[in-house]
Amino acid sequence: MDKGDKAMRSNILTVLRQAAGTYVSGEEIAKALNVSRTAVWKHIRELKQAGYAIESHSRSGYCLRETPDLLLPNEIKNGLTCKSLGREILYYTELPSTNTKAKALAAEGAADGTLVVSETQNSGRGRLSRGWYSPLHKGLWFSLILRPNFLPQDAPKCTLMAAVAIVKAIFRVSDVKVGIKWPNDILYDGKKLVGILTEMSAEMDRINHVVIGIGINVNVDQKDFPEEISQIATSLSIIKGQKISRIDLMQAALAELENLYHQVMKTGFAAVLAEWKKYSVTLGQEVNVIGINETFAGIAEDLDGDGALLVRCGKELRRVLAGDVSIRPRI
Amino acid sequence: MDKGDKAMRSNILTVLRQAAGTYVSGEEIAKALNVSRTAVWKHIRELKQAGYAIESHSRSGYCLRETPDLLLPNEIKNGLTCKSLGREILYYTELPSTNTKAKALAAEGAADGTLVVSETQNSGRGRLSRGWYSPLHKGLWFSLILRPNFLPQDAPKCTLMAAVAIVKAIFRVSDVKVGIKWPNDILYDGKKLVGILTEMSAEMDRINHVVIGIGINVNVDQKDFPEEISQIATSLSIIKGQKISRIDLMQAALAELENLYHQVMKTGFAAVLAEWKKYSVTLGQEVNVIGINETFAGIAEDLDGDGALLVRCGKELRRVLAGDVSIRPRI
Repeated sequence: MDKGDKAMRSNILTVLRQAAGTYVSGEEIAKALNVSRTAVWKHIRELKQAGYAIESHSRSGYCLRETPDLLLPNEIKNGLTCKSLGREILYYTELPSTNTKAKALAAEGAADGTLVVSETQNSGRGRLSRGWYSPLHKGLWFSLILRPNFLPQDAPKCTLMAAVAIVKAIFRVSDVKVGIKWPNDILYDGKKLVGILTEMSAEMDRINHVVIGIGINVNVDQKDFPEEISQIATSLSIIKGQKISRIDLMQAALAELENLYHQVMKTGFAAVLAEWKKYSVTLGQEVNVIGINETFAGIAEDLDGDGALLVRCGKELRRVLAGDVSIRPRI
Repeated sequence: MDKGDKAMRSNILTVLRQAAGTYVSGEEIAKALNVSRTAVWKHIRELKQAGYAIESHSRSGYCLRETPDLLLPNEIKNGLTCKSLGREILYYTELPSTNTKAKALAAEGAADGTLVVSETQNSGRGRLSRGWYSPLHKGLWFSLILRPNFLPQDAPKCTLMAAVAIVKAIFRVSDVKVGIKWPNDILYDGKKLVGILTEMSAEMDRINHVVIGIGINVNVDQKDFPEEISQIATSLSIIKGQKISRIDLMQAALAELENLYHQVMKTGFAAVLAEWKKYSVTLGQEVNVIGINETFAGIAEDLDGDGALLVRCGKELRRVLAGDVSIRPRI
């Protein structure tokens, strides 16, 4: 599908939406968008195939009855308040991993703010090469390509920035209050609701691009989860007892992310780190830090300016980086 | 060419080299390597096409008269002392950029130590998106893929490590003493001889891979350089007044790089930084630091533990990162 076709379909949807459930004739649409009636008919056929319930009537024309519950770019953009994030959206029904795809697109020059979204991932990835379960149509599995002007050593803090944005977006859309587990998970009642994986490509002191991958369990049923994670994972629909609009949450997530991203670019990460601390469920807790060569226990006391966790072990305050450790609450 | 063919050609070359300019019969080679005489004949034909001067004689057999002046994997590996660097070599006659190729190969899983070498680059890149002139057969234009166990924030120091290794390799092969200009150039008599471009892909606290790109002007003639760089660039052949073996220099570079790489993996960057200071032509000099928003003058006083340049401006010691600055000696 070329860019002109995409734009035309988007315009046709706008016309149909404005009609708010009433009929618009093919001739009106053709006139408004300056194309032939045959072209309108072809685009409507494509929209129907994509899942839009559009009624056709030989005299009255076309009427949009229902939009599909899909993360189609047209749906994400309809009502999106962002300036840069999501201006370019790449939509897939299935991908191995949105992060892997986004990294490849970024290497080919994809713009700052490009969104890669997939209805399912068959090899979704989390931190430390762990998998991420991403069932079809039941969650938000997406990656954002950013080209920030800060230094490579600041890039890891994008994970903290994304966590804060997603906490806010979830509250805005569902009223659910969630907490952040250092470094990259969002929990509800101790169960995993969201995972974040930030990757970057950089020169010595210049970022080529950052890819932030986010997985949100939106409408995953309890019985959907594979057995090995069913005790430790949850979803918004389980918490609320009802389905949540993935489009609403996607739009809220992009808006909150853009807000923080622009703030960070202007004034640095200090405000984001302060907000992160407010939502943290790790700080103040007794934790076990499980490294490759060593495991130790302590109290998670603070986050430092680099986003590292400061763990109190008696008189010693140990600085913990995310690279090689798991953090578990002490039982 | 599959791996078996590659290995067979390498084995045939070994047999011919051992004969040291005398003839070896096709039958002897076939027997020694357990293949048919026809297969030997076919491989010899391929080797001739690749540039090896092999004489064929119906009764006496084959004799290796001359190896081509090309960076063929067989030639690089013949006498290479490395354990990991260059174990896998990808050879190209022409590439846009060895770094771009190496990054793509690394993303697909290429092993630690993989070497990507090209006889010419048509879009060779330096720091800050500058170009790098890479004429056919006249230099070493190569990239190494590393998968180190240190943290992303240490990756930029790979440039300093590579600079030290190349200074040593050049001295070993040509007796020419060169100096390092912070952050990534090697100079002789103020003229550019070598450029280094380090790039990395990383998660929050874990390196996916580092790609070190190195360009060495080996046998570039003064008249070869484009006019805009002819006053500021030089080559080993210009300095020595004779051609230098690119294979010898490639092998020395890999050996020195492996030596430092293994040392850094065991004990960190301190020793490399100390050596770097020894070879530096920047420290102690008056410099102009030319940034995007600001330019200032001072004396390059020291390198800190992160590889940043410390510039003395009166009472103030300013820390300069490579990202956005050019360093010029004051005139």
